[in-house]
Amino acid sequence: MTTPQHLRDSDQAAGFDIGPDFERFNQMNDVFTRAFWDDTVLSADTDAFFASYRMEAAPRRGEGFNQRDFALRNASWLISDIISNRAAEDGLREGFQGAIRNDTPVAADRVTLRDPQFEAAEIKRIAKLFGADLCGITDLDMRWHYTQRPDTRDMTPIDDPLPDGLTHVIVMGHAMDADLVETYPSALAGAATGREYSHEAAIVMQMAAYIRNLGFEAVASMNDTALVVPYAIKAGLGEYGRNQMVLTPEFGPRVRFSKIFTNMPLAVNVPRQLGMASYCEICTKCADACPPKALPTGAPTRGTDSPSTIKGVRKWSANCEKCFGYWAKLRSDCAICMRVCPFNAPRDMLPHRLWVRLATSRWRQLAKRIDDWRGTRPRLKPRDWWGGNSGNSDA
Amino acid sequence: MTTPQHLRDSDQAAGFDIGPDFERFNQMNDVFTRAFWDDTVLSADTDAFFASYRMEAAPRRGEGFNQRDFALRNASWLISDIISNRAAEDGLREGFQGAIRNDTPVAADRVTLRDPQFEAAEIKRIAKLFGADLCGITDLDMRWHYTQRPDTRDMTPIDDPLPDGLTHVIVMGHAMDADLVETYPSALAGAATGREYSHEAAIVMQMAAYIRNLGFEAVASMNDTALVVPYAIKAGLGEYGRNQMVLTPEFGPRVRFSKIFTNMPLAVNVPRQLGMASYCEICTKCADACPPKALPTGAPTRGTDSPSTIKGVRKWSANCEKCFGYWAKLRSDCAICMRVCPFNAPRDMLPHRLWVRLATSRWRQLAKRIDDWRGTRPRLKPRDWWGGNSGNSDA
Repeated sequence: MTTPQHLRDSDQAAGFDIGPDFERFNQMNDVFTRAFWDDTVLSADTDAFFASYRMEAAPRRGEGFNQRDFALRNASWLISDIISNRAAEDGLREGFQGAIRNDTPVAADRVTLRDPQFEAAEIKRIAKLFGADLCGITDLDMRWHYTQRPDTRDMTPIDDPLPDGLTHVIVMGHAMDADLVETYPSALAGAATGREYSHEAAIVMQMAAYIRNLGFEAVASMNDTALVVPYAIKAGLGEYGRNQMVLTPEFGPRVRFSKIFTNMPLAVNVPRQLGMASYCEICTKCADACPPKALPTGAPTRGTDSPSTIKGVRKWSANCEKCFGYWAKLRSDCAICMRVCPFNAPRDMLPHRLWVRLATSRWRQLAKRIDDWRGTRPRLKPRDWWGGNSGNSDA
Repeated sequence: MTTPQHLRDSDQAAGFDIGPDFERFNQMNDVFTRAFWDDTVLSADTDAFFASYRMEAAPRRGEGFNQRDFALRNASWLISDIISNRAAEDGLREGFQGAIRNDTPVAADRVTLRDPQFEAAEIKRIAKLFGADLCGITDLDMRWHYTQRPDTRDMTPIDDPLPDGLTHVIVMGHAMDADLVETYPSALAGAATGREYSHEAAIVMQMAAYIRNLGFEAVASMNDTALVVPYAIKAGLGEYGRNQMVLTPEFGPRVRFSKIFTNMPLAVNVPRQLGMASYCEICTKCADACPPKALPTGAPTRGTDSPSTIKGVRKWSANCEKCFGYWAKLRSDCAICMRVCPFNAPRDMLPHRLWVRLATSRWRQLAKRIDDWRGTRPRLKPRDWWGGNSGNSDA
């Protein structure tokens, strides 16, 4: 595969260091997919993790993991679940293992477009109308696309290419609820994840339908089809952090991303150097707070020996097996590394904004000392989120 | 049918004047349903109206009704459409003609509840987390329930009762986008309607799933099963206005409602006297602005001779045939009566709040004179919503 020069031109600005040993990622190897076919990942715990999204299999194991917590988390996933389950008979888990199918056709007529700058601004405005918190646009780049996905009926690898002729990717950011995130690790906090998947499913599908109604191809995508992290960075939405997340000026790492592949001609954004990743070089709060020690404390490296790490990219890479092993034991997703990140603030107050200004300047060492001095914000207890300890009184 | 006294007790506070000739409403007679079986309503225009929600049948007839306008409107309905179409083979249009089916079962265990006041406050907090703008709770009252709904396969009437034992109704309000509403009448403005149906479908389904996960029955409902207007008023969310809408202190009439029928024991709200309906008595702006003159200019009356008006309730009643006939000709929904209502402000600024304070006091005649003097806010032109006249340049 030859990557066109204009795509590689912005790699450096995006902070990407891609070697000659680069290989596109096969979704068979993501740790969630491996939990269905790879004996080194799947276990009684991973089975119990997936089962806990149905109430009859949700455990009751104390504060943050009681019936109310799982009730809220599982309900929050509902819209995402409805979309991702509807093509199960075809071996497709829409939005996760395979793109979301077009619910509406591409209109026979195309609207007359103005210049790509105007149309890009218009797309971002409509994304906001539908509820996206961030929106950026970049060029399609096959390097980030999965080579294969699983057929979810039997977990065998299949090719599932996008339609020909797609040229652009619209990346949307969806902020997670700040207070719920403060309760990680808990099943309660998982409601922040589920709510945002349900939001992003609705928003990305409405946006893609809008573009098809204008007469252009538009494929709605969540975690499927391609890695969203490099796309979000290329679309100018943030920088890559030690915690494996995109750090955004607006929300720090507290944001999820969806994407649309389209042939609509749109002006693209450029990657931004924000100084956040530079701060990550001197900060290891996320790695220090990680219970299974799945995050690196050192400098970026060229891969790991895990099949779940993309090959040939020098970056901070998590130990996905340790990370997901901890999720499985918890019976819920963990994002302590998001909660404790100094760029995440439950409310974006002036002192936080001033600190971010300092941390992203050449005075980052001073910002680090201030952050060390103030320490890590205590976790919000699930009982306090629920409005008092008796609020979660299920036996 | 005998209505328990405790339900009738709050009729007066709600402003309901219900006579001995009261009859429950049959959904066969709502004007949208009649458009599929009643030759006095259905026409080439009503068929074209429904067809226009597919792009291949959307007209192009000038500003506000071009491809971009229909593209946005039709895309905005997508999530609502997916839900309402999924049981078409069973003759059920979920959320419109029949309640939304339970996607998840009632959990086998029930959480231990605190007192109904605490639980009601908790439900309202979770409703807000899922995106509801308003939430109130009232008692189940069969007077507002449809006697029958159509089987949508052949438009014959069928009984479709709720499960036994439901006692409470949670009513949620969903505010429509203020700027889009300023463009009524236009297909563009219809995006405000579609977006809110998509929002409310997602929110009401997640809320109902949450309650089922707690171990209680919960049936999610939009326009189906029962009239939401009396329920919203009984739940303390607003008063009934001349324009047939619930006038709320927060958004005036610019809000849609969904509802959940449940057996969860919850403290109920009481109807509120807000002074808004009293202002309607001296204001006829909505009726004056209605192109087909479908709204009454006089005092409330005891019904009309239309089958689409509920029998035995003294209230302001629209001429539904004229109203929907105008929608059909437009090929989109009309809510000019919402836009011009003095209680609707695109931005809730201090002068508006002061005026509302005056209009809902005994000085309402003075408020009326001020409103007469300032006149009606000009409609926002669709070309201006789109960011300049060339923004809507489709041939």
